[in-house]
Amino acid sequence: MPQPDRNAPYLLGHDIGGTKLAVVIADWNGRILHKVRRSTHAERGPEAVVASLVDMSREAMACASLSPANVGGIGVSCGGPLDTETGVVYAPPNLPGWDEVPLKSWLETALSLPVLIENDANAGALAEWSFGAGRGFRHMVYMTMSTGIGGGIILDGKLYRGPNDTAGEVGHMTIVEDGPVCGCGKRGCLESLCSGPSIARRARQKARSMPRSRMIEMAGGDVDLITSETVMEAARGNDQPALEVVDETARHMATGLGNIVNILNPEIIVIGTILVKAGDLLLEPIRDYLRRETWSRVYDTVQVVPAELGDAVGDLAAIAVIRQAVQTEGSV
Amino acid sequence: MPQPDRNAPYLLGHDIGGTKLAVVIADWNGRILHKVRRSTHAERGPEAVVASLVDMSREAMACASLSPANVGGIGVSCGGPLDTETGVVYAPPNLPGWDEVPLKSWLETALSLPVLIENDANAGALAEWSFGAGRGFRHMVYMTMSTGIGGGIILDGKLYRGPNDTAGEVGHMTIVEDGPVCGCGKRGCLESLCSGPSIARRARQKARSMPRSRMIEMAGGDVDLITSETVMEAARGNDQPALEVVDETARHMATGLGNIVNILNPEIIVIGTILVKAGDLLLEPIRDYLRRETWSRVYDTVQVVPAELGDAVGDLAAIAVIRQAVQTEGSV
Repeated sequence: MPQPDRNAPYLLGHDIGGTKLAVVIADWNGRILHKVRRSTHAERGPEAVVASLVDMSREAMACASLSPANVGGIGVSCGGPLDTETGVVYAPPNLPGWDEVPLKSWLETALSLPVLIENDANAGALAEWSFGAGRGFRHMVYMTMSTGIGGGIILDGKLYRGPNDTAGEVGHMTIVEDGPVCGCGKRGCLESLCSGPSIARRARQKARSMPRSRMIEMAGGDVDLITSETVMEAARGNDQPALEVVDETARHMATGLGNIVNILNPEIIVIGTILVKAGDLLLEPIRDYLRRETWSRVYDTVQVVPAELGDAVGDLAAIAVIRQAVQTEGSV
Repeated sequence: MPQPDRNAPYLLGHDIGGTKLAVVIADWNGRILHKVRRSTHAERGPEAVVASLVDMSREAMACASLSPANVGGIGVSCGGPLDTETGVVYAPPNLPGWDEVPLKSWLETALSLPVLIENDANAGALAEWSFGAGRGFRHMVYMTMSTGIGGGIILDGKLYRGPNDTAGEVGHMTIVEDGPVCGCGKRGCLESLCSGPSIARRARQKARSMPRSRMIEMAGGDVDLITSETVMEAARGNDQPALEVVDETARHMATGLGNIVNILNPEIIVIGTILVKAGDLLLEPIRDYLRRETWSRVYDTVQVVPAELGDAVGDLAAIAVIRQAVQTEGSV
């Protein structure tokens, strides 16, 4: 397989989600030239999904009037666990039936371009670091905060993957020993307290014991329809139970961020999705609680900010994977 | 100042403690050729302490019949906070009156040898990594576990210091929100639960409510004289209250280690002092609890082991600081 070409003007990105696939062509600055979308149809199996990606890549290059010679390489953002060195994907929860899929080798063979795969949280970290809120920092932690809580870590100007690509699982820090059961099977993980579904679960409990909460009305009278969005909206309207849920969320997030800061002392922590939508409503109490979790010398070093890339993160994540590999590692 | 000399056969180490100073001469493999000890007398001020270190260094070289030309450089292990780049020490808790002491520059001027200073936890990490239990690993976390809990982190074969030399403060992760007050002012830090004094505090509480505990007898009938050593000794004799304290200690340690493992996925965690003395009594339940804190894929990657260097860690820490700087960074 040829090495990535630093002089080619464009890069290809493959964003493999459980329901949607995207193939994008972008330049080195992350400007998207062309994008092709399809449903994943994971149930058809990995061969069919890879065949789709190959088709979509050819279509994207054709539409943009590019040949493979104009493309420096392909970056892939995909659910983990996966092995970035061998390019094999191991049973991601969102891709049932994918077990030991040699994704890199299949794509390289079909498209004759060098491929680097990366788990989606690490890829998101690279995207925010290359094109978003983390630009210019040497030490950054990126956290997704949506259905789950994942993370990616940039240290000394380089993605830190750990010995088997499993570093950055910030959502599975224990925040409350013997706390709520998490999707991972453990108890009291940050994800079991502060993911979207966990915030909603805590809000439903609170609403049941405080039936005058506006959250119930906003959810059409059905407590079970309260979501994390309901919480934030009700909190903006000064609904006391919702404000309490926001405060608890901020408290637990700050405990988790405090642990990260005490261990890694990053310059910036970039948080996606829920924090982006909630803005200062959630960010200000997080910062207040975080101040109590660290020494001032350390607190003063770290910024906590919302992610900047929004819905574009998936596309740019895939591009950032190959861009970064070529720029800092020189090879895939 | 000359750069460190890779070809000089020996290295000098300065271990600056709150009560004792040590200056050692060692070869690159950590074999100690000569050692000089004195009391610190921190109350006489930093100039006097540095004058002592300079005297001791000359004495050590004279006794070993070495000239500065035989010495590649000086490594210093000292309480933090400190700045490794400028070589300035900022008010370590164990050195009252040291505020913005330009330690590196004073020593370099007096001894005409290049100096690198490092905080004692990072220096200890370098020592265990260079000469002890962490030899040969690329990703290692070192934890002290004595009066306080500190740490040092080796990632991708290099000490990770963070942007202002404050990474690795693993003792100040929050393990129990609203837990016991820690020396740092926060609540529920790992240190507030699992340091020697914290283990003793929990044991005293337990002994007061369970007055038939053998711990009281072992402490001469005075509950206030129970120490962490008493706990371990009584636990070995199957004293139930002591076993409960050991179990709680293991549980909280495993929560902290789980957070480290989920974030950093190190290959080995090396733990000093209390764990070294307690051995399997504490290590086995820590491993059992840790298994529940992580995925098997991650748990299977990480070893948790006692430190190997014992009381020699301070001397070798100072030597490891300069050895590592010369070998991996090429300069001080």
